[in-house]
Amino acid sequence: MNKGRLFVISAPSGTGKTTILKVVMDNIPGLAFSISHTTRLPRPGEENGVDYHFVSHDEFRQMITQDMFLEHAEVHDNLYGTSREAVETQLDEGLDVILDIDVQGADIVRRDKRLDPTYLFISPPNLSELEKRLVGRGTEDEERIALRLNNAKTEMKAANKYEYLVINDQLEEAVELFSAVVLAERAKAHRLRNGKPIGEILI
Amino acid sequence: MNKGRLFVISAPSGTGKTTILKVVMDNIPGLAFSISHTTRLPRPGEENGVDYHFVSHDEFRQMITQDMFLEHAEVHDNLYGTSREAVETQLDEGLDVILDIDVQGADIVRRDKRLDPTYLFISPPNLSELEKRLVGRGTEDEERIALRLNNAKTEMKAANKYEYLVINDQLEEAVELFSAVVLAERAKAHRLRNGKPIGEILI
Repeated sequence: MNKGRLFVISAPSGTGKTTILKVVMDNIPGLAFSISHTTRLPRPGEENGVDYHFVSHDEFRQMITQDMFLEHAEVHDNLYGTSREAVETQLDEGLDVILDIDVQGADIVRRDKRLDPTYLFISPPNLSELEKRLVGRGTEDEERIALRLNNAKTEMKAANKYEYLVINDQLEEAVELFSAVVLAERAKAHRLRNGKPIGEILI
Repeated sequence: MNKGRLFVISAPSGTGKTTILKVVMDNIPGLAFSISHTTRLPRPGEENGVDYHFVSHDEFRQMITQDMFLEHAEVHDNLYGTSREAVETQLDEGLDVILDIDVQGADIVRRDKRLDPTYLFISPPNLSELEKRLVGRGTEDEERIALRLNNAKTEMKAANKYEYLVINDQLEEAVELFSAVVLAERAKAHRLRNGKPIGEILI
């Protein structure tokens, strides 16, 4: 079995990333989200090692000290992080792993030279379209929308650092492009060969 | 409009390349074959500049002297070649261009540092499967099949030099993979941006 590939995905909030990822992962076998470590308690139905790796604050802090996280963050007093080992385990199982993180998280992953992920940025067609979508939702006030747009602007500038750019104008097209990137990365010859000369796998 | 991308495609004979290319080109807009120059006479219905660029032997030889061909070959007393300019014209029109050539032709294109094509090799799953297909056709004798298999073996070894490898086990899957490569190459961020900072096209 070939080792899986790590995909680092970022998108400004409101771009439709969650919907795109859901459809792509329903369509393409062998694709999985990375499983984060967290210090928060499991919710009903959540399974350790499937939804999250549930650990204590002490364990988490020790893992930080031992440089075991690709990236981690604190959200509402709880710690969340992606451990290198958890990702490697999934990759070794032959799964292509989706690491869904913001541009700052991606910058940290980028500095880790032990990894060679494929970077993909999902963008709205432009800022005014994003504004229209956020206003259309009707769930947030003007101030909050202005803040989101400002963040989106900063994030979209960082899209320069991503290898692939999927513009979510029409959902169906964005899903097709995203899926194409995953399949094309799988068709990269050196990956299929896994270091072996082609003759060994074909002739 | 963004400039198109050149795809160099090779496959051993009997692999199903022609069928795959036909389906892919029917499915994906903006994809075209390169238009070759030839010294043979137009057949009924063939249009100059569409099916071929029809030229005299003298013109062809002059183009060789002026190093205007990416690659050229003589077949049954007629000359066939792909001119750099013909390909560039199509690329400038925003078309992605398919250059369907054998591994020797691809080697010549590879030496031309003015180009940066995407190389894709289509392979049968293995040699015995290819033999089964060639025998199944029932159009060739044993000796001719042995020759084809021997050529295929040599060509499959050259697959090492191609960036993408599409194994034609199931036609539908091979078409999907090939299409994915074309779409993913289009989603490469630097190509979409055409040298511009991302802000200029998105914000």
